[in-house]
Amino acid sequence: MGDPAGIGPEVIMKTLASPAIRGLAVFVIAGDKNVIGQAASIAGISAEELAFHPDPGPRTSGLELKEKCINVIDPGPELDDMAPGRPTDAGARKSLACIDLAIHLVRDAQNDTPKAIVTAPVCKEAIANIHPGFVGHTEYLQEAFSVKFVTMAMVGERFSVIPVTRHIPIKDVASSLSVDLISGTLEQVIQNRSVISGKDDPRISVAALNPHSGEGGKIGKEENDIIRPAVERAKAVYGPVEGPISADVVFYRALKKDTDIVVSMYHDQGLAPFKMVEFDTGVNMTLGLGHVRTSPDHGTAFDIAGKGVAGTESMQNAVKLAVRAITNR
Amino acid sequence: MGDPAGIGPEVIMKTLASPAIRGLAVFVIAGDKNVIGQAASIAGISAEELAFHPDPGPRTSGLELKEKCINVIDPGPELDDMAPGRPTDAGARKSLACIDLAIHLVRDAQNDTPKAIVTAPVCKEAIANIHPGFVGHTEYLQEAFSVKFVTMAMVGERFSVIPVTRHIPIKDVASSLSVDLISGTLEQVIQNRSVISGKDDPRISVAALNPHSGEGGKIGKEENDIIRPAVERAKAVYGPVEGPISADVVFYRALKKDTDIVVSMYHDQGLAPFKMVEFDTGVNMTLGLGHVRTSPDHGTAFDIAGKGVAGTESMQNAVKLAVRAITNR
Repeated sequence: MGDPAGIGPEVIMKTLASPAIRGLAVFVIAGDKNVIGQAASIAGISAEELAFHPDPGPRTSGLELKEKCINVIDPGPELDDMAPGRPTDAGARKSLACIDLAIHLVRDAQNDTPKAIVTAPVCKEAIANIHPGFVGHTEYLQEAFSVKFVTMAMVGERFSVIPVTRHIPIKDVASSLSVDLISGTLEQVIQNRSVISGKDDPRISVAALNPHSGEGGKIGKEENDIIRPAVERAKAVYGPVEGPISADVVFYRALKKDTDIVVSMYHDQGLAPFKMVEFDTGVNMTLGLGHVRTSPDHGTAFDIAGKGVAGTESMQNAVKLAVRAITNR
Repeated sequence: MGDPAGIGPEVIMKTLASPAIRGLAVFVIAGDKNVIGQAASIAGISAEELAFHPDPGPRTSGLELKEKCINVIDPGPELDDMAPGRPTDAGARKSLACIDLAIHLVRDAQNDTPKAIVTAPVCKEAIANIHPGFVGHTEYLQEAFSVKFVTMAMVGERFSVIPVTRHIPIKDVASSLSVDLISGTLEQVIQNRSVISGKDDPRISVAALNPHSGEGGKIGKEENDIIRPAVERAKAVYGPVEGPISADVVFYRALKKDTDIVVSMYHDQGLAPFKMVEFDTGVNMTLGLGHVRTSPDHGTAFDIAGKGVAGTESMQNAVKLAVRAITNR
C-alpha cells in the first residue's frame, strides 16, 4: 500500500481499475482496509470487486484468494484519523506492517505459484522514526531475503539504467568503485537482461566514470584500471557488452536505441538522463533478491494525495514489469 | 576553419551556402584557400561567391571585406597533400595559424564593427604535438584575450547547461568546488542570460552535487555549505535563480521548459542529459572572454570527413548564436 497518507493507495487502485491490468495476475494488496476502500471509490472500483481476507498469520496455506477480485489483506491495527497528505507515526507503522506482510506472502507461501512484490511509495523518514535504521525498501527487502548483494535497475520505456553505486556522496564515488563491484553488478544485469529490456539479446553499455572517458588516462585512471577489466570479464559471459563509453555519448545512443541498458558508475550519472525522459514512466526494480520486486519511481507526493490527480503510468509499468519477470510474458 | 582534414571546412561552407545565414553578417573564414575551395564545391558555392584576401598582417585596417561574398583569408603556408580524414602536423599547424588569425582580426581590428569568432573543430592532440600545452580552443582563447576566468556554456534548442567544473576527474570534483567558483560562474551566466536563452528573464536552476540533493546533509554537505550560499548571492543580483535541485529532477524540468538554464556542478552531470537531446544541435559558447566565441559541439569526425555527409545543424546554431550575441537579434 505504501504510506496511507501518500498517493500509493490511489495509484494502486487506479491501476487495478483497468481490466487489462487485472487480467495479468491475481492481485493481493497488503493495506489498510479503510484506506484501500476509499482509494477504490476514487478509482471507480465497486465494493463487489474487493475481497477482504484476514491476516493469514505464519502459515499462508489457509489463504483462499479470489482470482476475479482485488484481494485485500489488512495486517492491522486499524488506522484512525488518516488524512491524505498528512503522514503520521501510525501510518508509517502500518506501511511497514504491509511490507512485512508482502514479504511473508512471497517468501513463506506453501505453493509454487510465481509471486512478485510491487511496492508503493513510503515515507522513509517517518518509518525511520519508528524503525531506526530504515533507509528504504531495497535495503529492507535485502535483509528480509538474506541476500548480500542487490542491484537497483531503473527500467524505462526508452532505455534502462543500472547505477553501480547509489546513495553516496560524489566525493566517495571513485574510491567506492572496484572491478568486483562493477562485475557483480554486470553479472546481475546480464542474468536479468531480458526482463529489463524485453529483448533476448539487448545491448549493454557501460558508462565511463570521468569526462570524455578519461581521455586516455589524462582525466582519471579508473576507466583503464577498473572499468575496462570488469567489462572484459562480463564480455566473456555475454558478448553484447561494451564500454567504458563517455557519459555524454552513451545516453545519446540509448535514446536513439543504439543501446538498451546503460550501466552507470553513480546515481546522478544514470538517473539525471533517465528521469529527464522517464520521470513519469520509469520503474525501479531490485535485482538479486531471489524474488521479483518492482516499484514505481516516484515518491509519496503528499502534496497531491487524496486529490485524485496522481498519474499511474509508473505504477502500471511496475505491475507489467513484475508480471513479465515472473511469467516471461 | 578547424582541422583541414576534419569536417570543419565542409560544415562551414554548407552552413554559408544558405542565403538566410549569409544575410545575418559579413563572414570571414580564416582558412586554407585550397581546402576552403574544395569545401565550397562540395557545398555548391560558386567561385564568384568567394573573395580571397591576403593576410592583413599586424594592422587590419587595409582589409576590405566584400559584404556579399564569403571572405577568405589564408594565413599561409599553403598545404600540400591534404587528404580528408588524415590529420597531419602541417594541418594542425595551419589550424592553429587560423585560430591566431581569427583572434587577431577580432582583438586588434581598428574599427567598431561588432565581431565574433565561430571556431570549427580542431584535433587537440595534433596541435599539442606541434604546440605543447594546447588543451583546446577555450583555454587558448582565454590566454590570447588575457582573461582570468571563463565559463563554458552549452547552448541548446531545448535548454542550456553551464558546468561549474569541466575536464577534471570525478574524484576531484567535490574538492574543486567553492562558493567563489560557483558565484563567479553564476555571475557570467546572469550577465549572458539573454544571449544564452533568447529570453529577457530566463529561469536559472543550479544542480545539487550529491544524489537527492544530499538529503538534508545525509549524502554530502556541499549543498548546504557551498552551493546554497552561492545561489543566495546570485539571487541578490537576479531573482529567478533557484537551487540546489537534485540532478534527477532539474533536467526533467528543463526538458519540460520549467527552467531555461541549468548550472551543473561537473561535466557529465550537465553534458550527459544535454547531449542526449542536443547532440546534433548544441553550441559551445565561451563566456567571459570579452569577445563572443561560439563553436559547434562536435569534433573533427575524421571518419566521415570529405564524404559530404556531415550535419550542419550545430554549426548553423553556432553562427546564429554568435550573431545574436553581438547584435541582440
